[in-house]
Amino acid sequence: MPQHEDDIVELKSAPSSIWELDTPIPLLDVDVANRNLARWQTRCDELGIANRPHIKTHKMVRWAREQLRLGAAGITVQKLGEAEVMAQAGISDLFVTFNLFGSHKQRRLAALARRNSIRVVADNPECCQQVNAAADHAGRNINVLVECDTGGKRNGVQSPLEALELARFIDRQPALEFAGLMTFPLPGQRLQSAEFFGSTKFLLEESGLPCHTVSTGGTPDMWSDEGLDIVTEYRAGTYIFNDRSLVDGGHCSAGDCAVTILATVVSKPSSGDRLTLDAGSKSLTSDLRNLRGFGIELESGRQVYALSEEHGLLDIRDWPSAPEIGDMVRLLPNHVCPVINLFDEVALVQGERVLGLARVDARGKVQ
Amino acid sequence: MPQHEDDIVELKSAPSSIWELDTPIPLLDVDVANRNLARWQTRCDELGIANRPHIKTHKMVRWAREQLRLGAAGITVQKLGEAEVMAQAGISDLFVTFNLFGSHKQRRLAALARRNSIRVVADNPECCQQVNAAADHAGRNINVLVECDTGGKRNGVQSPLEALELARFIDRQPALEFAGLMTFPLPGQRLQSAEFFGSTKFLLEESGLPCHTVSTGGTPDMWSDEGLDIVTEYRAGTYIFNDRSLVDGGHCSAGDCAVTILATVVSKPSSGDRLTLDAGSKSLTSDLRNLRGFGIELESGRQVYALSEEHGLLDIRDWPSAPEIGDMVRLLPNHVCPVINLFDEVALVQGERVLGLARVDARGKVQ
Repeated sequence: MPQHEDDIVELKSAPSSIWELDTPIPLLDVDVANRNLARWQTRCDELGIANRPHIKTHKMVRWAREQLRLGAAGITVQKLGEAEVMAQAGISDLFVTFNLFGSHKQRRLAALARRNSIRVVADNPECCQQVNAAADHAGRNINVLVECDTGGKRNGVQSPLEALELARFIDRQPALEFAGLMTFPLPGQRLQSAEFFGSTKFLLEESGLPCHTVSTGGTPDMWSDEGLDIVTEYRAGTYIFNDRSLVDGGHCSAGDCAVTILATVVSKPSSGDRLTLDAGSKSLTSDLRNLRGFGIELESGRQVYALSEEHGLLDIRDWPSAPEIGDMVRLLPNHVCPVINLFDEVALVQGERVLGLARVDARGKVQ
Repeated sequence: MPQHEDDIVELKSAPSSIWELDTPIPLLDVDVANRNLARWQTRCDELGIANRPHIKTHKMVRWAREQLRLGAAGITVQKLGEAEVMAQAGISDLFVTFNLFGSHKQRRLAALARRNSIRVVADNPECCQQVNAAADHAGRNINVLVECDTGGKRNGVQSPLEALELARFIDRQPALEFAGLMTFPLPGQRLQSAEFFGSTKFLLEESGLPCHTVSTGGTPDMWSDEGLDIVTEYRAGTYIFNDRSLVDGGHCSAGDCAVTILATVVSKPSSGDRLTLDAGSKSLTSDLRNLRGFGIELESGRQVYALSEEHGLLDIRDWPSAPEIGDMVRLLPNHVCPVINLFDEVALVQGERVLGLARVDARGKVQ
């Protein structure tokens, strides 16, 4: 947990036990989160890789500070709105891993660049020109990494040759510095991305363009050594909390999951087949992540087999000890990142003890 | 649009054209929304059915006020947090269609009941006892409707006999008044629910229990006359905005959809197969609603075939006029209700003209 005075959790008349909280609400176990953070920082230190955690998962200043205190080199954000919240709180080393376009983004990027160490990605020349205009406006050069599509089929230049071409383009812009390569690989694509990076680095060196940073990301593969030799920086987000999709993929255990949703059983029809919880898609999201059900009840492992906006349904057939009306249960969400983004506040807990309520500072910062 | 001085949209240096807005952002066309509202109110007036719109879709005080101004008998909310926001704004006839449990809900319900006309649902005796305690605490009786499962297989008593039993139970609670029957039918279940209601009303009358209100809901079936004879009140939410799922179901046209998401093309890889938009699951949600894709691009009808939290992907193969990098597009979301719930603000527009930005007052009020 953060050490600064101003980071002390808001008590806001929070009860002492989770079972006295209003529902639905995310429970964030700080011991589990701290353990996840420490373990990963230790590994980065051992590997000699810069840890640049992605704050899109927690969206909280307190956790970004804690990541930095443990040794992170800076933070990663997906949107300028997230960067603004973090910068306002004094966090000044920011990597924006999203192509920025439009006059609003230019103005906001310029304002951020004036007072912070900001770097961004680009995968096309138009984006570079926009960032250059912002840098020019800020009166400070901005570092740009070339985003590479190393198999993820989302954004990114498509080949090492294209990466070289864009790096040269960046190098020619008066207010930009080419700072390296970045990818967001899908699980299992690390070797593939290492090959892409290797070829690109060779081309860059031939051209006299130094490539200081090679940045990869993704929680599922962070414990694999495969293809890490060339990597200088790792961006992971979900590792702080973990979730059902990571447990299901064999990347962690349920005990490594820091966030559950506390919900109340509000209905148990006499049909005897189901119960209803007060958590639906406005609490759990509809993210399936290739799983069955929209989350699981922690004790029983039973899936939330259907949900509407405020209702979640559990099948209680052959479940003699099923919870009763008015009981509370804890749900493990499929995908924790968009879940946290639905809540203004989460409860910080240690086991069943409530430490306080904490604001999700950058919730909804989608621009 | 609302008429009161304090309802004037916040201009907040909003640009005059949608193409000058920062993205992603929901565009809410007030002419389309007003037309949707007026058309439905006229129909309710003709049918002699009380219109009690569900504000879970728009979550905005201004639209609740407009619904009341047009003739709505009161509003419907799913959660107490929504009721609190509306009550604070002076909207005092509130129907909470969700079983309420726990000491927090009791205290909050009591506070609301003191100053407002609140009615709630229940489908089990435990819930009734909780509401009774709140009413007792408030010093004012609370009206309770029995929620009936007429085929939706969510909450609700399972038979007319159970409904009678619960109505009697409510009638016996010192601080509760039995006020009628309520259901949330799935599309196509109106006749089925009318049968359930008919049998229950018969049983209630036999028992000397008057059933003042028979409340049904759901936007998809609101234009059907089937099974409406017994209904005294209609709760619809989505009808104010409509969405892709309603267009797809044949319940409205794309021109009846008031909300689109404005997004920017941020990447167009040289592979030539796709482009990336700056709107992902944190803007569009992952709600599929049995459709393919996570929304469609309005002009082309092309689906957002994949998304991550901040990226949405469009297939551009065989699309010679596909938008270019930096261009903006409008996306029609699958399910508008959880989309609005993701944003702090929406842009109120008339066609391509921006009127101002408006807060989503009850966003995230999930408790």
